[in-house]
Amino acid sequence: MFKRIIDNIKNKKPLIHCITNYVTVNDCANILLACGASPVMADDLKEVEDITSISSGLCINIGTLNERTVESMIKAGRKANSLGIPVLLDPVGAGASGFRTEVSNRLLKEINFTVIRGNISEIKALSVGGSNTKGVDADLKDKIHGEDKEKLEFIKDFSRKTNSIIVVTGEVDIIAEKDKISLVRNGSPKMSDVTGTGCQLSCIITAYISANKDDIFKAVISAVAGYGYCGEQAEKRLSNLDGNSTYRNYIIDAVYNMLAESLEKGAKYEIL
Amino acid sequence: MFKRIIDNIKNKKPLIHCITNYVTVNDCANILLACGASPVMADDLKEVEDITSISSGLCINIGTLNERTVESMIKAGRKANSLGIPVLLDPVGAGASGFRTEVSNRLLKEINFTVIRGNISEIKALSVGGSNTKGVDADLKDKIHGEDKEKLEFIKDFSRKTNSIIVVTGEVDIIAEKDKISLVRNGSPKMSDVTGTGCQLSCIITAYISANKDDIFKAVISAVAGYGYCGEQAEKRLSNLDGNSTYRNYIIDAVYNMLAESLEKGAKYEIL
Amino acid sequence: MFKRIIDNIKNKKPLIHCITNYVTVNDCANILLACGASPVMADDLKEVEDITSISSGLCINIGTLNERTVESMIKAGRKANSLGIPVLLDPVGAGASGFRTEVSNRLLKEINFTVIRGNISEIKALSVGGSNTKGVDADLKDKIHGEDKEKLEFIKDFSRKTNSIIVVTGEVDIIAEKDKISLVRNGSPKMSDVTGTGCQLSCIITAYISANKDDIFKAVISAVAGYGYCGEQAEKRLSNLDGNSTYRNYIIDAVYNMLAESLEKGAKYEIL
Repeated sequence: MFKRIIDNIKNKKPLIHCITNYVTVNDCANILLACGASPVMADDLKEVEDITSISSGLCINIGTLNERTVESMIKAGRKANSLGIPVLLDPVGAGASGFRTEVSNRLLKEINFTVIRGNISEIKALSVGGSNTKGVDADLKDKIHGEDKEKLEFIKDFSRKTNSIIVVTGEVDIIAEKDKISLVRNGSPKMSDVTGTGCQLSCIITAYISANKDDIFKAVISAVAGYGYCGEQAEKRLSNLDGNSTYRNYIIDAVYNMLAESLEKGAKYEIL
Repeated sequence: MFKRIIDNIKNKKPLIHCITNYVTVNDCANILLACGASPVMADDLKEVEDITSISSGLCINIGTLNERTVESMIKAGRKANSLGIPVLLDPVGAGASGFRTEVSNRLLKEINFTVIRGNISEIKALSVGGSNTKGVDADLKDKIHGEDKEKLEFIKDFSRKTNSIIVVTGEVDIIAEKDKISLVRNGSPKMSDVTGTGCQLSCIITAYISANKDDIFKAVISAVAGYGYCGEQAEKRLSNLDGNSTYRNYIIDAVYNMLAESLEKGAKYEIL
Repeated sequence: MFKRIIDNIKNKKPLIHCITNYVTVNDCANILLACGASPVMADDLKEVEDITSISSGLCINIGTLNERTVESMIKAGRKANSLGIPVLLDPVGAGASGFRTEVSNRLLKEINFTVIRGNISEIKALSVGGSNTKGVDADLKDKIHGEDKEKLEFIKDFSRKTNSIIVVTGEVDIIAEKDKISLVRNGSPKMSDVTGTGCQLSCIITAYISANKDDIFKAVISAVAGYGYCGEQAEKRLSNLDGNSTYRNYIIDAVYNMLAESLEKGAKYEIL
């Protein structure tokens, strides 16, 4: 399944427009290069439409939201919609402040997102206007288990409501396109010790779907399984003295070196 | 001394709100994760109060100061004060421009800082309105020696005046809480070849004091000695081909792996 | 040729004021430290003149251009001109949006740049107002070959028109000061898999010319050949599992450890 999807990225080298936070933006640029795409970061109202227009995908991340860039996000998102360019939303920290919840809701209203990716707290905040997010990490009590039927239903509902593929990352990653569900069991808990692994995954998903517009659901699965698999491979390289900074480097390195053949063997996913 | 303080961080995993510069913000996030805390970066006027309210500590860093975020700093700082949440000021480059000196003075006036951490040039600029800072590094002529009594008096005075613990980092790190002084002799001169080691230390101090509100002076000593000790350990890993980028990674890695037991043996501090 | 130029940087430790993008700013700070200079990042209108005034060089990079910082760039650039401080322009992504082209033209009109460094697409966009840039990377069809006489003439013309040294990086790097041309054949294609190698080079050039105002052309050659040479050395350290993140670290490390003696042997340049 993965070979054609990954080949498309390497061959098309899609340009991905990111309007993103300044915390993890460097890692986002390097992970896009690592997976075979090309990054362009631009957030000024005067240029976002031009930049989106020459791009193959748009990744909107609200990690360090500010009033200036909200308008840019909307302008870019609408342009992407009008041109049929895939758009992803990463609602970092949604629920943690009234501003983030309000802006997220406005983005959902004004833009059709191809994919929305967050942890369960963030996705809940989007869907119910809740505000129980602990910073940018999922609450422990919110950690979803693939087996939890009620939560799966909630995610499917949200997918139907938004007409977007919903990706909830956690112990088990859940991908929902209306009634279609995929569970991915790759990755390592250690990845949450590195800042921005969620942001990086959002960038990779955007690249994968931009180069595989004919099979977006499988492109999302490939991105999620692939990035998790790289997290596992990177962890194997760690020595006793290595910590989260070396791990960050090794994860990006692993994405750079990932072969479709290896992912074919290492991916742990099911489609329900 | 260190075990209880470090255990408190690992157990409480305090969420630290950073309003900080965009140069070193990624390292700040990773160092907070490395030491057992959790980062949230948010600087928009519309959300800083919400974010501070759910956090255990606030770290304000003026490294890439701009008019927009000054107001956010003040709003967040006041909220922290009203909720009894510890606040740290890192006056990066204070004295280097009229704007930084003016803003620093305004911050000092409007916010009660639990800790102020800078190099001697920056602390001098805050205290006397001087403007002899060479960029963000301490002037050589300003390098303080723990033995210099006049400078110790000046730092104690500033602590009394601001009602804050003052941390002056340099060859010897000086921590002053009014008349109480601690000198810390950990660290390596090579750490100043890595951008943002000062910013990182400020984040770590904020995490340590947030998880140890009952013993803030010792929490500060632990953070300063601990980070310096990690700089020493990281330096030992360097090979001939390694430079400041690998050193950056190894310092963060060392913080990630630091044990209270090792620090107990490696800390070089005295309380006068 | 290189020893004196490199010694000047190590001895003078020039402070370089960067008004730059938030994607690669951390690497820019670390590469400046690595090459023996000292970074200061500041972009608020209220302080850029103060900061430029205490600096030895100014590096303007439009990678994440926004309306607020355009005015800061102009103010800082004019101040640098009035004080005889070298100024470099890195027109990242010029041509990719109307805004970038327009701002670039305004910067060229209002500031005398000592050096302008970009890829061939960017330099073309500056010179003819073209808009065929693919994000921030050079189009394949635009890759210049040193042998291409027409392109050399175009670059010389642009140097005469702007009264700046023009640096076009690519497979072969071209440095033009009016009729004087140097071709540099150091570097590795793998460097374009790391985000910000162009930004880093711009910082290094700024540092080199700031410490060598009496021989700017040779300082530029040294910076370009030196950084390319470090890219080659860093590549030799890479193992099978390493990717673009480790490569990023090794490039900075190589700059940190680069000796004039080694560059003397490894530089591949000619002056036409």
